[in-house]
Amino acid sequence: MKTAKVIGTGLIGTSIALALTRRGVKVYLDDEDTTAARTAEAMGAGTLEVPQGPVDLAVLSVPPTEVASLLVRVQRAGLARAYTDIASVKSRPRDEILSAGGDPVSYVGGHPLASEGRSSPLAARPDLFEGRWWVLTPSDPYDQTVLNQVLELVALCDGVPVIMDPVRHDRAVALTTHAPHLVSTLMAARLVGAPDDSVRISGHGLRHVTRVAAGDPEFWRDVLGANADAVADVLDAYAADLNEAVGALRGLGSADQEVRARAAADLDELLKRGNRGHARVGHRPGEPPRGLVPVPVVVPDQPGALTRLFGSISRAGIDIEDVRIDHTPEQPRGLIEILVDRQAAPDLSRLLSLDGWSMPDAGLLAAPLR
Amino acid sequence: MKTAKVIGTGLIGTSIALALTRRGVKVYLDDEDTTAARTAEAMGAGTLEVPQGPVDLAVLSVPPTEVASLLVRVQRAGLARAYTDIASVKSRPRDEILSAGGDPVSYVGGHPLASEGRSSPLAARPDLFEGRWWVLTPSDPYDQTVLNQVLELVALCDGVPVIMDPVRHDRAVALTTHAPHLVSTLMAARLVGAPDDSVRISGHGLRHVTRVAAGDPEFWRDVLGANADAVADVLDAYAADLNEAVGALRGLGSADQEVRARAAADLDELLKRGNRGHARVGHRPGEPPRGLVPVPVVVPDQPGALTRLFGSISRAGIDIEDVRIDHTPEQPRGLIEILVDRQAAPDLSRLLSLDGWSMPDAGLLAAPLR
Repeated sequence: MKTAKVIGTGLIGTSIALALTRRGVKVYLDDEDTTAARTAEAMGAGTLEVPQGPVDLAVLSVPPTEVASLLVRVQRAGLARAYTDIASVKSRPRDEILSAGGDPVSYVGGHPLASEGRSSPLAARPDLFEGRWWVLTPSDPYDQTVLNQVLELVALCDGVPVIMDPVRHDRAVALTTHAPHLVSTLMAARLVGAPDDSVRISGHGLRHVTRVAAGDPEFWRDVLGANADAVADVLDAYAADLNEAVGALRGLGSADQEVRARAAADLDELLKRGNRGHARVGHRPGEPPRGLVPVPVVVPDQPGALTRLFGSISRAGIDIEDVRIDHTPEQPRGLIEILVDRQAAPDLSRLLSLDGWSMPDAGLLAAPLR
Repeated sequence: MKTAKVIGTGLIGTSIALALTRRGVKVYLDDEDTTAARTAEAMGAGTLEVPQGPVDLAVLSVPPTEVASLLVRVQRAGLARAYTDIASVKSRPRDEILSAGGDPVSYVGGHPLASEGRSSPLAARPDLFEGRWWVLTPSDPYDQTVLNQVLELVALCDGVPVIMDPVRHDRAVALTTHAPHLVSTLMAARLVGAPDDSVRISGHGLRHVTRVAAGDPEFWRDVLGANADAVADVLDAYAADLNEAVGALRGLGSADQEVRARAAADLDELLKRGNRGHARVGHRPGEPPRGLVPVPVVVPDQPGALTRLFGSISRAGIDIEDVRIDHTPEQPRGLIEILVDRQAAPDLSRLLSLDGWSMPDAGLLAAPLR
């Protein structure tokens, strides 16, 4: 990529522009808000000059409701050889592009997973996307050159590309981003009008749950509006669970012992489901999961053998997550599993082998544990 | 206070014991779980010996459902001259104490605002309560000596005491701690069974909202059960707002322009209410609000004057929150407001005056800004 144009110099657009400029791409900037555009230029994100011919890639960094009309306009003007965007909703813009007669093939929808909420270019950083997922929703059929250009964009921003179907993507973000935003907003809304002495004795829980209720209403109205049905579906399911929770709480006060017992069991089940759901949330959102794999080692049933193994592990200098030394029918005596990060497994195997340990079935290395 | 007994050496009880021991109080420990008791002793929180006579204060660090029966038992045994507890629900235990024939006057209900969720004594720290609210719910009438003993406990733990009516307290924690826990749990529960490729593209929002869904189900069942109606009341109101939100989202897809417009307005209003509620949540939960005040400074309308002022501010070495240099009818040209923490305002004024700046109406320093 030699040249790019970023339209929309908010947080995301400016961060992309900074990342590309840092890697030697000539970046042209544009924003209907001239202060935002000049700020981005002043930060070294690119130039406000108008490109003299088509650029390699145009990045439309505008709200989801504006993507289609802007894309059609710039495609007709021949602005670029390839186009992408950054909107967190993908299927409605795609439908609108088709209805408006835009070209779906020279455009690959994109959604870099970075901070939500429109904000000033002043907060932009070139490393905003480092190690984070960047969803791409190419059309079917797609143009290989165009897709490669967008993949290069993601690589230059140090992101991790993942291709998804647009509808599936929208349902995913409805669940993991849009519905949570409303859940948080609704909890914060409960505090409006609450007495001061109530609010002041709040704890960490409230702060975490309401953390994201601070976003720009205009931005969120656009995003939620563009994904309204998928978000409403998630919230309908949430409302059903909520209804069950309230029923359980009221039931705990019943005079009937059986009703109380059932209510307690329902509440318990809900709390445990919450624990299970919590365990699925990544520690570093937007980052690919690391995944642990078991590395099996044969350990003879002799005194000191395990100690020697731990010595070898220690000398290998590789972080291990856990060691399983249970003797189960599936795991015959003498076989121990060392849990390590998927990427570290080959090195560990090699070093243990060099130390004389016997490593069965290397095929096990391929299966992710969690 | 010379002697104290802590019954229940979990996180809270052990932290209290550590704080008291650090201040020279002789602390006796007890827990039905002997491992927890021995761990606390090993951490230096006190002794497992049995006191030879009444101690000055007994701290019942047990779940809300166990407070009343334990209190009645230890009161009958003459364990202490004053009693308190740490349960996060206060009115039901009080009612149960009265029904069970306990003495409400030698007992002052307490609730230190620290990490929720039962956990091991190993996580205990003597400074856990430093600067944090500690709610007290003395009976009416109360015994001055008993209350003073409990106030001394709070002071020795560096907490900030605040007296509240027990029912009001329970409604407050229902709103600020218990309902948020369920709101978080319900969001996390949505992830159970969700496809992997959905969950992995989650963002910070999901992580924040589901953060507290990891608590011990047994602990939360006890707490929520002891405050069930107050929590259900908050969730009923939440459910009504949720219903409105879903209605607005569905309305955004209507063919009728008026329905769409009204839906958009409803969603916008909800998002703004969320913003307002979010603004009420303290930055450091459990801490008394710091409050910002404006320190007005006269700045002559000359080139370089503002730069000189910033130099003075910088030399003053005081953290400033913001500077307002808008020229409005209320703020005539030449007057600038520096926003600082209420406690820092006198120092800032003094240092700027010493640097030659003119400071109008010191009365403005008294008015908290937010």
